[in-house]
Amino acid sequence: MKVITLLTDFGLKDPYVAQMKGVILSIAKDVKIIDISHEVHPQNIEQGAFLLYTSIPYFPKGSIHVAVVDPGVGTSRRGIIIDCKDYTLVGPDNGLLVPAARRCENFKVYEIVGKKYTLDKITYTFHGRDVFAPIAAYIANGISLADIGREIEDYVDFNLEFGKVCEDKINGKIFHIDRFGNLITNIEEGLIKRYIEYGERIDLIIKGRKYRVKFLKSYGYSKEGEILLTIGGIGFLEISVNKGSASRELGASIGDRVTLVL
Amino acid sequence: MKVITLLTDFGLKDPYVAQMKGVILSIAKDVKIIDISHEVHPQNIEQGAFLLYTSIPYFPKGSIHVAVVDPGVGTSRRGIIIDCKDYTLVGPDNGLLVPAARRCENFKVYEIVGKKYTLDKITYTFHGRDVFAPIAAYIANGISLADIGREIEDYVDFNLEFGKVCEDKINGKIFHIDRFGNLITNIEEGLIKRYIEYGERIDLIIKGRKYRVKFLKSYGYSKEGEILLTIGGIGFLEISVNKGSASRELGASIGDRVTLVL
Amino acid sequence: MKVITLLTDFGLKDPYVAQMKGVILSIAKDVKIIDISHEVHPQNIEQGAFLLYTSIPYFPKGSIHVAVVDPGVGTSRRGIIIDCKDYTLVGPDNGLLVPAARRCENFKVYEIVGKKYTLDKITYTFHGRDVFAPIAAYIANGISLADIGREIEDYVDFNLEFGKVCEDKINGKIFHIDRFGNLITNIEEGLIKRYIEYGERIDLIIKGRKYRVKFLKSYGYSKEGEILLTIGGIGFLEISVNKGSASRELGASIGDRVTLVL
Repeated sequence: MKVITLLTDFGLKDPYVAQMKGVILSIAKDVKIIDISHEVHPQNIEQGAFLLYTSIPYFPKGSIHVAVVDPGVGTSRRGIIIDCKDYTLVGPDNGLLVPAARRCENFKVYEIVGKKYTLDKITYTFHGRDVFAPIAAYIANGISLADIGREIEDYVDFNLEFGKVCEDKINGKIFHIDRFGNLITNIEEGLIKRYIEYGERIDLIIKGRKYRVKFLKSYGYSKEGEILLTIGGIGFLEISVNKGSASRELGASIGDRVTLVL
Repeated sequence: MKVITLLTDFGLKDPYVAQMKGVILSIAKDVKIIDISHEVHPQNIEQGAFLLYTSIPYFPKGSIHVAVVDPGVGTSRRGIIIDCKDYTLVGPDNGLLVPAARRCENFKVYEIVGKKYTLDKITYTFHGRDVFAPIAAYIANGISLADIGREIEDYVDFNLEFGKVCEDKINGKIFHIDRFGNLITNIEEGLIKRYIEYGERIDLIIKGRKYRVKFLKSYGYSKEGEILLTIGGIGFLEISVNKGSASRELGASIGDRVTLVL
Repeated sequence: MKVITLLTDFGLKDPYVAQMKGVILSIAKDVKIIDISHEVHPQNIEQGAFLLYTSIPYFPKGSIHVAVVDPGVGTSRRGIIIDCKDYTLVGPDNGLLVPAARRCENFKVYEIVGKKYTLDKITYTFHGRDVFAPIAAYIANGISLADIGREIEDYVDFNLEFGKVCEDKINGKIFHIDRFGNLITNIEEGLIKRYIEYGERIDLIIKGRKYRVKFLKSYGYSKEGEILLTIGGIGFLEISVNKGSASRELGASIGDRVTLVL
């Protein structure tokens, strides 16, 4: 039984995601469909790419991941499939899929060609349902990628910008804010652990203000209302407030810069 | 393997939808349950009927659709099943199911009779779980509709009011507002395309103000902040703002009138 | 085919719940995963325990329920499994699971020991994915609880505080507020029905104000804007406003006290 995951900026209040699932189940009777998230900020390709990148490793081998954050839908932007051997990515050719593809050693990119494996009618505004959902379902059914598209080299490339050390600072930015108001940065666990140990205090600069904060294993080691740094479940440095919202209390948004003074 | 879809105004923060799913899986072990939406505006039967109507065609033949927008729950309003051959509808007899039923040529309506296929205890406030969910599950298991209810002719009728041409105007209204703030009208693709071509400009009147807007294939052809008309994925005319929210910028709500001057 | 349910305070905008599902499906190919709710108020163990307690009876025999409301994650708090014969509970040892366990006559509590059935890497902040999800999946696969942990007696106990009669009053509090703004109290159906009949009026005191309200079978029997008492689908007394939000109109929040004068 194959798993197909969905990641979009469509939200769940509208029937868009359901229609994608209906199309998939009309073609591939026996797949498991899992929602990664449908709350990507509208048209925020970087955030979508980050969430896809961080979630891929937790799914079974052979999973097919459909991602649709697609400001160019209905224009001449191409649809692509990326073959990463252990998993397959389906979505628009706008960079969204590439960081997740880079997790595997070699990947092949196919441009979707023709309408053999799409819905008969392709609307200009909803390729998630009309193109990417049916193609994912046919891939689950075993149709070969070479039959659905043709290999290309000139796909739209995109790299997630991870945190970097510069002199005595680690410079990063906020990739995502979760439900608890935790600020999830682009600073990877491996990088931060080279410079700080659990229990240490460090200066954090965000939105032009400096805070003296502790790097802790988890919230449970901090006091209510305290700002703390942890490694979140996603494997990146998070800025949190125990029993509070770091986003609200620090006035921070997705894309804001973050500096740690070593 | 059968598909059962759920459309309600229950939201997802409460355990109501989960309890419906638990009841279904207690009876029919092997169905796929798909959420169409649980964010119908509380008790808005017209909006629920519209979302059901537009989603039905994307589901596999044989699907069973449970819809619960039910201001009359616990009163003497009846529960019904509608047999549309290729799909079955289950829900309250308040008009909610009828537009979706009209998509098929002939349909038969059954009033749910007795408690043979419901939960033993039927609460006054939650027939979604106590009546409609188990009945959908028994239908998936192959129980005949004639065994569950008796055919009736005097069901509550309801027609979606689609946009209409009146002299030199197309008059419509807003059926739904999606996550992006797009205003989804009741003006069908076929109607609008008889009068306007992609690329043309047209006068749009909404909330007492007139806007000169372009009819475009998709957002990708407009500039940031521009108001545009498109045919949305749902097959109806949508009023959008590129990278913005038409709902917020035009101050429009569900039910508001829309006029296009031809 | 086994059912695994998930109840957390993680929300659905983040990929946390999806990663739990990915982990489960990587181990147990053929389970059905059902979301009970992911909108428990952050770290509100009592609310989580209540939603779990009220939902358990609607799921098939043999279901495995994973619940994660976990302020102590990453500290020395233990992870536990509770064997209730007809169902199994998995989550943190902080009281969250105990009210649901008490629904069965005898239950056994096991502390999760070792890393044989967890992910190889256990983060300090996300045991939902790294510990509880894989253990639920292995239980679905038939691994015995004695192999995963060791029986303990000193688990963290917790009782839901249900409404009580005191002289001429029933004293209760608000456990949950649903999407419609209904105030769901801790006063059980059986208790209230001993003292009031449908159609009767009664004095309700909430937030220091007294209201004369009717106890009705369902909203359909009240007028628009009227405050009413009903037994909700969850089996507890609810305070509602017909076509309005009781939460907004009475200014009430989770945890607020409620008094009925008999």
